[in-house]
Amino acid sequence: MTKSLVFGHKNPDTDTICSAIAYAELKKAQGEDFEAVRLGEMNSETAFVLDYFKAETPRLVPSVAKEASTVSLVDHNEKQQSADDIADVTILEVIDHHRIANFETADPLYYRAEPVGCTATILYKIFQEKGIAISKTTAGLMLSAIISDTLLYQSPTCTPEDKEIAEKLAAIAGVETATYGLAMLKAGADVTTKTVDELLLDAKEFDMGDSKLEIAQINVVDEQDVLVRKAEVEALMTQRIVEKGLDLYLFVVTNILTNNSVGIALGSKIDKVEAAYGITFTNNLAPLTGVVSRKKQVVPILTEVFSK
Amino acid sequence: MTKSLVFGHKNPDTDTICSAIAYAELKKAQGEDFEAVRLGEMNSETAFVLDYFKAETPRLVPSVAKEASTVSLVDHNEKQQSADDIADVTILEVIDHHRIANFETADPLYYRAEPVGCTATILYKIFQEKGIAISKTTAGLMLSAIISDTLLYQSPTCTPEDKEIAEKLAAIAGVETATYGLAMLKAGADVTTKTVDELLLDAKEFDMGDSKLEIAQINVVDEQDVLVRKAEVEALMTQRIVEKGLDLYLFVVTNILTNNSVGIALGSKIDKVEAAYGITFTNNLAPLTGVVSRKKQVVPILTEVFSK
Repeated sequence: MTKSLVFGHKNPDTDTICSAIAYAELKKAQGEDFEAVRLGEMNSETAFVLDYFKAETPRLVPSVAKEASTVSLVDHNEKQQSADDIADVTILEVIDHHRIANFETADPLYYRAEPVGCTATILYKIFQEKGIAISKTTAGLMLSAIISDTLLYQSPTCTPEDKEIAEKLAAIAGVETATYGLAMLKAGADVTTKTVDELLLDAKEFDMGDSKLEIAQINVVDEQDVLVRKAEVEALMTQRIVEKGLDLYLFVVTNILTNNSVGIALGSKIDKVEAAYGITFTNNLAPLTGVVSRKKQVVPILTEVFSK
Repeated sequence: MTKSLVFGHKNPDTDTICSAIAYAELKKAQGEDFEAVRLGEMNSETAFVLDYFKAETPRLVPSVAKEASTVSLVDHNEKQQSADDIADVTILEVIDHHRIANFETADPLYYRAEPVGCTATILYKIFQEKGIAISKTTAGLMLSAIISDTLLYQSPTCTPEDKEIAEKLAAIAGVETATYGLAMLKAGADVTTKTVDELLLDAKEFDMGDSKLEIAQINVVDEQDVLVRKAEVEALMTQRIVEKGLDLYLFVVTNILTNNSVGIALGSKIDKVEAAYGITFTNNLAPLTGVVSRKKQVVPILTEVFSK
């Protein structure tokens, strides 16, 4: 039997890593040979999660076509967020909770997207539909993915279904959601020991209208931990703009305790962000009050102003 | 509560019409206000089906944005196959069994695609997952959709799941599949009374590489019924090429008794079809031996040669 790979987006987060592991388990339980891999370095939150539940770290695979001819995607679909050589393999399946864009196949495929807060929520439903039991470790990983993506149910992306399923997973995993969740989020939000590269690790590229954007996000417990290093961060953002030919680089620094963000923006299209939110950037900095979700409170709003 | 519309592709076939009706029923059973509509004239097979099961004909709605701000799509996703003003409404959901292409949203949505022979097969699974009973009439419509799309299980697009679900639907509908199915297919395959426009009714547009194609298909019990009118057909194909700026018009005439087709091709890119199948068109005509499925035996193969 031929092996397939399953992976999430570049610059992996907890949902991308944990959903890849969970989906590989699901497929193995159905007798198929799937390996969960990752396209980039893991963040400290995900490292905390894998360590806590004693799960193996998926192998780092920069190029997928050398390893397999068929793949499944979790937690993303846009090709610029996927493996660089994604065009050289056949996509069998996609399980995702994002908008669909820059995605095209020659053949019919299995595609399951739902407008919920986390890929793991959809995976839980598929496990149920197929009648496959979820192990304690996998339940812990899937719970962590939901806590991460919904900021412990505080994000506007969180649906009643995410919360309900997270609590069922917590029961299987044997953890208390609030206590475990806050410890996990804090492990990811401690930015004081991070390099500048690590601050911008959770970055995603988007094509909007005729413009090319990168939107990075980081969770913190105090914005100042990032802002004291603003000059260094801006230097790296500028470098990325030049390397990738971007029209805009937006860095969203989200405080997980207050549920507000500040934005740092560079590039020729800053005025679009100002128009979108009715804000003014001063020294490239502006408040993004109440914004915690890139997917729901940044991408659609910018897509609209860039499409005009 | 705001009303949403649900519809299938332009130039509707039996799956597009019957799946729209079935999906509207499913949503109504969940307390949502959905109306099944159609984007174009129905073919004679679908008319036979609606008459047989005493189902109402969905309303013809050339423009959707005037009627509703939210829609769900069945049996298609590519925008050139959808309503002309699809960009002016929000797509809530897609239930489909085709490749994904030319499809983009600003927001996350519910998208359910499976590589099965028919949309109605996926709908049956959703009815089961939600625990909603299927009425006798709706079961008959869904069965008809599967018979139509799989040519009574003879098409290579037919999966064991399509057949299994069709037989369950036949039991609910109270019909004998083989007898009913052949009568239904023959009702659609009687082309002798059709106008030339009606011969090319089941036409879909595709963007492949830098080229624009239209691929039409018709089921017959004798190819000669179409070929005696080849000059008339070619005149209409030529007109469409000019009007739409097409690089290729391919008309696939499929014999449902022998499971073979002949192709009539016009346009500047006929050589691509010849290369794809290793055939030579003589007087724009060539045999397509064993080809019965546009989706599985035409679109992917042409996509590949047009992408080179």
